[in-house]
Amino acid sequence: MAVYTDITENDLRAFLTHYDVGELTSYKGIAEGVENSNFLLHTTQDPLILTLYEKRVDKADLPFFLGLMQHLRARGLSCPLPLPRRDGQLLGELSGRPAALISFLEGMWLRKPEARHCREVGVALAKMHLGSEGFSLKRPNALSVEGWRNLWGKSRDRADEVEAGLQEEVSAELAYLEQHWPADLPAGVIHADLFQDNVFFLGDELSGLIDFYFACNDFYAYDVAICLNAWCFEKDGSYNLTKGMALLEGYGSVRPLSAAEREALPVLARGSALRFFLTRLYDWLTTPAGALVVKKDPLEYLRKLRFHRAIETSIEYGLAAEPRQ
Amino acid sequence: MAVYTDITENDLRAFLTHYDVGELTSYKGIAEGVENSNFLLHTTQDPLILTLYEKRVDKADLPFFLGLMQHLRARGLSCPLPLPRRDGQLLGELSGRPAALISFLEGMWLRKPEARHCREVGVALAKMHLGSEGFSLKRPNALSVEGWRNLWGKSRDRADEVEAGLQEEVSAELAYLEQHWPADLPAGVIHADLFQDNVFFLGDELSGLIDFYFACNDFYAYDVAICLNAWCFEKDGSYNLTKGMALLEGYGSVRPLSAAEREALPVLARGSALRFFLTRLYDWLTTPAGALVVKKDPLEYLRKLRFHRAIETSIEYGLAAEPRQ
Repeated sequence: MAVYTDITENDLRAFLTHYDVGELTSYKGIAEGVENSNFLLHTTQDPLILTLYEKRVDKADLPFFLGLMQHLRARGLSCPLPLPRRDGQLLGELSGRPAALISFLEGMWLRKPEARHCREVGVALAKMHLGSEGFSLKRPNALSVEGWRNLWGKSRDRADEVEAGLQEEVSAELAYLEQHWPADLPAGVIHADLFQDNVFFLGDELSGLIDFYFACNDFYAYDVAICLNAWCFEKDGSYNLTKGMALLEGYGSVRPLSAAEREALPVLARGSALRFFLTRLYDWLTTPAGALVVKKDPLEYLRKLRFHRAIETSIEYGLAAEPRQ
Repeated sequence: MAVYTDITENDLRAFLTHYDVGELTSYKGIAEGVENSNFLLHTTQDPLILTLYEKRVDKADLPFFLGLMQHLRARGLSCPLPLPRRDGQLLGELSGRPAALISFLEGMWLRKPEARHCREVGVALAKMHLGSEGFSLKRPNALSVEGWRNLWGKSRDRADEVEAGLQEEVSAELAYLEQHWPADLPAGVIHADLFQDNVFFLGDELSGLIDFYFACNDFYAYDVAICLNAWCFEKDGSYNLTKGMALLEGYGSVRPLSAAEREALPVLARGSALRFFLTRLYDWLTTPAGALVVKKDPLEYLRKLRFHRAIETSIEYGLAAEPRQ
């Protein structure tokens, strides 16, 4: 949560002359998003989000992210909509950064979601998977199994600083996952980062998904595994089976998992836990002490990984015993 | 800039049942304010600011701050208005903190103010001084001359870590100011922290003042001196005489400075520079490296202090040679 790049009112005003969005009346940096700087704008028309893309985001990926949001909105899904400039472009530049103006999505993310919310998340995730079909751009998932060895190489030598024995345990886990990773499952565009703060609710109703800046092409069931990790564990590290059942039931009510996907779920969940463990570990070891970002504990994801290692079949996650017919 | 205390949607919803403000549709932590946590709320009615008062603010002072905003609004000044709960109270509690709901003031603070803006700041400051007359509560200025020795005592022994010779220079300055501080000048409620980010503009028009959480009773001219320091120096440390003239002319057009105030201005400006130097120095030496707040350079204010030490009369700040008749 941070604003990395501040903007002057004059620069912002000049930037906005390219859009039909009314007169600017206020802008405030908001404490959301870890990768980019975000501002909430009030105008004489609708509120807007202004995003400045910071260095961690590859500019070449922006057409994928912004185009995906447009595609999903056109298919009836609720997510922020990038606004085109008068010249049709979705991207401009502000304070030396690529910048986009995006519609404001009302709703709040839940600090304490309950099972009924997890069900809605499952439904929305499946709708996003179906809705992204036909989107023409592709983006490989750099943070899936092929990317982990390289990522691990950047932290491995210092891993035991965080917990004794980590180096051995994670190296063995990585080797296992490389050997057992599924070769072929239904795939398409996945969100890949659908944590609590990226799902908005109005009351108990899900009002939309945000933050598509990790979206990529990968197995749909891997996205389900990411959500199990993000939504169905309690703060004490325990797996909440009721939430797991609700999330999986919600997902399956829109897009039933195939037998191969069901079978792969435990290994995908291990992989998803490893992926977030590895990026958090890297950030933990490299983020300077004075930085504005709150560092997330990598061990939270190590504990989830250990939980998944003991899982034998998807039924243990709360998946109904038989696929729906 | 930080959000120190997060809030859950359920707690916020419960808090809002005490107010008539419509239905909550969104809340976002905003990256403004150093002392408190601030959230921008959207509702089915007007946008609002929710402030959670953190530990650095003395709860006993809150009636003064909130009452002052009400008083100024009632006198026609533009500033945020604390909204009363249904039971008439201005303060509630949220996430274990005293919390208030405050009207949203449209406008933007200027990252690069020009002389014409400084004039408006002078006008608004004088109107605030006149407008605060009749406000019944009192709050002594703990950060004026009587408080500096104690504050200095907390940093003195480590001051030379920041710049060699600081300990001797600041101790001498403090002794000088204690001896030469004015005994009696026109006094009342002052803002005491009217930096750029606390003055909003819509276009070139000043739309209001915010952040009254340092307001207190002290000499009006001391507030003018604070503004000279905050608004009339350039990033390279130079004093911009055009801005100084504009600010002083604007102030004097509403509330002309008396001969005694004019004479005291250089010593008040030294004192104001010392005050911000001392709090910044303390924060510099004590803020933990991992904190969310960007530390402000204390030496910026030491350089201003040195500038003021060379000033002989207020005319050098750009004050017109003769008081208006």
